[in-house]
Amino acid sequence: MGTAQLTAVPEPKYWHLRTVLLRAIDSEFATGEVIPNERDLSARFGVARATLRQALDQLELEGRLVRRRGIGTLVAAPRVGVPVSRREEGWPGGGPEQSWQTVDCAIAPATEQLAAALNVPVGETVYTVRRVRLNQGQTVATESLHVPDSALASLPEIRSAGSGADEGRAVLRRLERLTVDGESRAVELGVAEADEAALLQRPPGTPVLVVTTQFASGGKLAALAVATYRADTCRLTFGETGLVEVTPVAGTVRTAS
Amino acid sequence: MGTAQLTAVPEPKYWHLRTVLLRAIDSEFATGEVIPNERDLSARFGVARATLRQALDQLELEGRLVRRRGIGTLVAAPRVGVPVSRREEGWPGGGPEQSWQTVDCAIAPATEQLAAALNVPVGETVYTVRRVRLNQGQTVATESLHVPDSALASLPEIRSAGSGADEGRAVLRRLERLTVDGESRAVELGVAEADEAALLQRPPGTPVLVVTTQFASGGKLAALAVATYRADTCRLTFGETGLVEVTPVAGTVRTAS
Repeated sequence: MGTAQLTAVPEPKYWHLRTVLLRAIDSEFATGEVIPNERDLSARFGVARATLRQALDQLELEGRLVRRRGIGTLVAAPRVGVPVSRREEGWPGGGPEQSWQTVDCAIAPATEQLAAALNVPVGETVYTVRRVRLNQGQTVATESLHVPDSALASLPEIRSAGSGADEGRAVLRRLERLTVDGESRAVELGVAEADEAALLQRPPGTPVLVVTTQFASGGKLAALAVATYRADTCRLTFGETGLVEVTPVAGTVRTAS
Repeated sequence: MGTAQLTAVPEPKYWHLRTVLLRAIDSEFATGEVIPNERDLSARFGVARATLRQALDQLELEGRLVRRRGIGTLVAAPRVGVPVSRREEGWPGGGPEQSWQTVDCAIAPATEQLAAALNVPVGETVYTVRRVRLNQGQTVATESLHVPDSALASLPEIRSAGSGADEGRAVLRRLERLTVDGESRAVELGVAEADEAALLQRPPGTPVLVVTTQFASGGKLAALAVATYRADTCRLTFGETGLVEVTPVAGTVRTAS
């Protein structure tokens, strides 16, 4: 593959403006600072308001700008590195470093789709525990943890005093006893559905990173976690060794060389 | 946290339509099938063209629909699971299963940003090898692999016959001899910059999953890879054990229970 292709795709106007704006933001404004309003910006850069708005939308999507009603458009804080690993899943749960909070628990027969995903018969009882993950006081993720009754059956019973969050915590305490042999993960781009968006306190359709984790026990799938992380504020970190820490790499390094 | 919040965020009109459309697509159309045109769809669902277009844009972003000029809007194939691991990085390189192709190699003094990211002095020579990753004949990712001269210096020299791709392959062959003690990875949402977009054969601004990998050797950072994967067609898989394979979980499982 030659490099002749490099100029084959034309650069849209808003995209050029986005790159120019990004450079201006990096050099002239600090995190949390309010940038000039749309009228001033379109005058300064000599562009139509529609083009400017498209560039600002883009930078908001990239997590570089935040719009606050009644305040204006602010330079966003850098994304927070959020470790993704079993240690971080919060089973056992409890302890001061605990970052997951249990919201509720639904107990229902497996639908066709869920049965296929969990590899259990349609109609088997499935516990779905919903949790939110907090990072520095902000909700960064929401998760649905699906556990089929057959996986829980071998574990000591823990009676829940009430329902909802109590029931969910009882399921998580039972899972503490599960011997997890392995897990595999997938990450993809998604959008927050209405209920996820509500828990993330964002509008539906907000871009999220969907992390699907399968937990195996005794060679069988024992639990399936589907977590949605806010894509505007989070970078997911996977440290496979303790040797090197991933330090934030500014987006501009990608084009720096 | 109660569940009262669940109804706190109002659902925009286009979002409701997107959900209705998704159900219709899943039940009435097969992968690769052309869906009705905008006029017919807006009549069928009784919505304005602008709302319809917003919903279609959304489904295209989610990788559920693809627009093809001169053909129309098609139901997209499910995303392809792309394994991300050192074995997949393609150093050693070669072999029929080799999925990375070397595009070119730039040799330049480290800018301030790149020096900070690589933990080397500003001005140290850095080799930047660009590669593209193919999956079933489609370009799914592009990568810039930054290697400081100090990391290469300890490795046997391999002279490159030419420049560009040849030079890049020579750097990769030298890296085969590197003892990698560990690596850490971060995944975040990004957008394709102009040069990345050209290699991915997509317009600039296309959503991508940015995978940053740090490779350590002898307790020091030896290489930094910044890869951008097409977010519309890829799901990244991280298998930590061979026990369970992550199977595609349809997006709808997220709301199935």
